Amino acid sequence: MKEKELINIIKDIVGSEYIGDDCACLKDIGIVVSQDSLVENVHFSLRYTSAYQLGWKSVMVNISDICASGAEPKYLTIALSIPEYVDENFVSEFYRGAKDASKDVKIVGGDITGSDKLFISVSAIGSTKARRISSRSNAKIGYKVIVSGEHGNSAMGLKILNSEIKNPQEKEFFIKKHLMPEARIEFSKQIAQNISADYAMMDSSDGLADVLCQIAKASSVKIKIDSSLIPHNKNVDMDTVLYGGEDYELVAVVPEDILPKISDYTVIGEAVSGNPAVEIDNIVVNDIDNKIYNHFED
Amino acid sequence: MKEKELINIIKDIVGSEYIGDDCACLKDIGIVVSQDSLVENVHFSLRYTSAYQLGWKSVMVNISDICASGAEPKYLTIALSIPEYVDENFVSEFYRGAKDASKDVKIVGGDITGSDKLFISVSAIGSTKARRISSRSNAKIGYKVIVSGEHGNSAMGLKILNSEIKNPQEKEFFIKKHLMPEARIEFSKQIAQNISADYAMMDSSDGLADVLCQIAKASSVKIKIDSSLIPHNKNVDMDTVLYGGEDYELVAVVPEDILPKISDYTVIGEAVSGNPAVEIDNIVVNDIDNKIYNHFED
Repeated sequence: MKEKELINIIKDIVGSEYIGDDCACLKDIGIVVSQDSLVENVHFSLRYTSAYQLGWKSVMVNISDICASGAEPKYLTIALSIPEYVDENFVSEFYRGAKDASKDVKIVGGDITGSDKLFISVSAIGSTKARRISSRSNAKIGYKVIVSGEHGNSAMGLKILNSEIKNPQEKEFFIKKHLMPEARIEFSKQIAQNISADYAMMDSSDGLADVLCQIAKASSVKIKIDSSLIPHNKNVDMDTVLYGGEDYELVAVVPEDILPKISDYTVIGEAVSGNPAVEIDNIVVNDIDNKIYNHFED
Repeated sequence: MKEKELINIIKDIVGSEYIGDDCACLKDIGIVVSQDSLVENVHFSLRYTSAYQLGWKSVMVNISDICASGAEPKYLTIALSIPEYVDENFVSEFYRGAKDASKDVKIVGGDITGSDKLFISVSAIGSTKARRISSRSNAKIGYKVIVSGEHGNSAMGLKILNSEIKNPQEKEFFIKKHLMPEARIEFSKQIAQNISADYAMMDSSDGLADVLCQIAKASSVKIKIDSSLIPHNKNVDMDTVLYGGEDYELVAVVPEDILPKISDYTVIGEAVSGNPAVEIDNIVVNDIDNKIYNHFED
């Protein structure tokens, strides 16, 4: 079973218009919420990550979800389930990492229990005050596709950790990108506070190509990308740039007139009329579900 | 390691005034949040519970946390991690149970991933609008101790499931109390909407005696209980009534003048001056940490 099929089953039963997006926007109380879990040996391995790095990443991926919505990250709760082979010191280090990653975002609660394997589930709350909230279905013909940061670095880090790369260059740089990502709080704020039209924004947790496909499909637009414009490290190949996951960079599809009001972005393409699809260098990206970064074990 | 020791470690690191209560009250955005996890073979066993019942209980225990705060339960997110031995049908049934338990509360999102064992973490959001929010440190001398429902039934159900009771009476009744608890939404609403003074309220997830000790300690009051007043089923012994957990009944310590404004409660004692402690039938309850229902594996 794939995650997306299961989400469709859940959507059918729960009948909620909220299910399926990374964040749910609760307009009546002016907040967005997200919840993401990290499971040992599915999303991380203790062979590679320290407790501090794990605490950091658990928090950061959830802050990133809130940033993708355009809301201001405000509060977090953390549920941690620990097996017998981790000790008090592990819990301390995990929370030190979580605390350092959370910065101005407050950790306000959660739960700690026993378990067979490490299991972390973080819930994040953002405020919609003075922000315009994104939706993946809001891309429109003529909008520009912009991204923050570089793409593929985190997946490159994972490949290095998995010993898939011989004699890796900039080893520590890539590994850090994988283990300790940074959510794009400023990029999100600049857009959400200044934009005066509906727009689409997601983070690249499942990879850049996946985000583009999600937005194209939900918004019923064709997205054309020029791969030579995608910011990436020279040591990372284009397949990893497009299909690698967990960079937690932001990808936004926005009207051109917002661009002078924001900084530190790169235009990589645009939304045009046509069948919902992604064209990279004029080649349609098919089969995306088989290529994208998918943690889920079939 | 006990849960409470770990919470103290976390509190030290995170430095948040919110950590330690079942719900965090976020005054600036007018909500309360809670997060609770259920881990296979720690909090439940698939030998005893169906997927539907598990979905029901996962949601209900979190709604109960919101009710304990006095807030109105509004939204839920559910993170579910599933091992290979559960199928699509299990996921459907789980969500059917979750949906039925949630009633007017909306399930707005979450996460689904793979894992070795079943792992469920639910986050709940409540609105503080037109409600006075409780705190376990708000009990005052002269306040009455009131409870909803009957106590000990859920623990009795667990004992029956564990075959600890010979020839159990009302078997199905007790088992249902354990597997499909009901959060006390109305009891909470009546108090939180009508009370004009600070008050303490918690749910009895860890057992009645534990709640009373938590409140006595946090509020620096002595709590005197008359055990003959505690509503319980005739087939449940007093130890189970006091120390059994997971009834998810509400326990409130409130000024007497609220009582005419609420219904379906039982007065079981009062808060008096003296050292912070719980006296049941004039006997001080010591050693509570060793007697209470503690899921956490040492």
